Amino acid sequence: MHPALEKMVEGKIELSAEERELIDSCFKAKTARRGEILVAKGSIARHVYLVVKGCLRIFLTGDDGSESTRFLLFEGRMGTAFPSFILRQPSVATVQSLEPSELLVLSYSDREMLFEKVRALEINYRKGLELDYIASIQRIESLITMDAKQRYMALLENSPEIVWRLPARIVADYLGISQETLSRLKGK
Amino acid sequence: MHPALEKMVEGKIELSAEERELIDSCFKAKTARRGEILVAKGSIARHVYLVVKGCLRIFLTGDDGSESTRFLLFEGRMGTAFPSFILRQPSVATVQSLEPSELLVLSYSDREMLFEKVRALEINYRKGLELDYIASIQRIESLITMDAKQRYMALLENSPEIVWRLPARIVADYLGISQETLSRLKGK
Repeated sequence: MHPALEKMVEGKIELSAEERELIDSCFKAKTARRGEILVAKGSIARHVYLVVKGCLRIFLTGDDGSESTRFLLFEGRMGTAFPSFILRQPSVATVQSLEPSELLVLSYSDREMLFEKVRALEINYRKGLELDYIASIQRIESLITMDAKQRYMALLENSPEIVWRLPARIVADYLGISQETLSRLKGK
Repeated sequence: MHPALEKMVEGKIELSAEERELIDSCFKAKTARRGEILVAKGSIARHVYLVVKGCLRIFLTGDDGSESTRFLLFEGRMGTAFPSFILRQPSVATVQSLEPSELLVLSYSDREMLFEKVRALEINYRKGLELDYIASIQRIESLITMDAKQRYMALLENSPEIVWRLPARIVADYLGISQETLSRLKGK
């Protein structure tokens, strides 16, 4: 099994040799260039992406061309334009590779088949989904209760890699603040 | 099985008579008064609540006593202070019954046992969780991309019951806008 898949299940679930082989055969390796669009706005997200190396950004675009970053996925994380992937509807969000990325890609139908055949994998997925849901709840909390400074401090504490690794434009946009406000906060 | 539980699984999964009985035995009936606190801030949420009648509100309190509504749960919906319930940590949020409510209550350990014994129920839960996660993603989208008027229009379209059923204070707070802005938007 691919080392990134090993890491995903390591210490969490037990798999037979047959199950490992089946899982490995469903995840296809893919590389993405810096800036490459993996899911375009208006198309259906047909895959979920496990980030082996690099970073994916899921963002929204306004009518005026403005961009709002919804999520960032770093190494070891799995994601896609989730509402589109699950509901089989055109995506309102765009999925882009922010850096040169190595990915493992799983299709919707292979995912269904894997969950059907490998129960432990579905349980592992469900528990991961609960944590993703908690992260989104905490994101909502930070958006409804914190001001710019508090959001920046929380980001520094919980996900410092976002601050030091990504362009200021993306960080400001993720926090929902202007670049000027961000550089003022960084200065303090 | 309780009619509210029937409705939860109806047309989605097949259950044996034995499984129905097991599920029914795990959900305990509970009534809550208007304003009653079900999970206090700082305590651990030990149950998940299915709303049979009434409405639950999950909200955050600021140091200055201000309240921010994170979620509202109406009839047929299930929820709790989710991060606390899953992570077994003190809750940052409060769960309150906004109206006189009839609830069905499931403990953490009974939930684990049910998922272990009734696989179809876990699959049904996982699919519901995916939809809850999508709803939270859309809430994040609305918070990062919409202004007060757009958020109000989206709420009217997607969850009109929130607007006509709940006090203006709660609606304004859910939208993250002032009551003055809300009554101005309603007037238009």
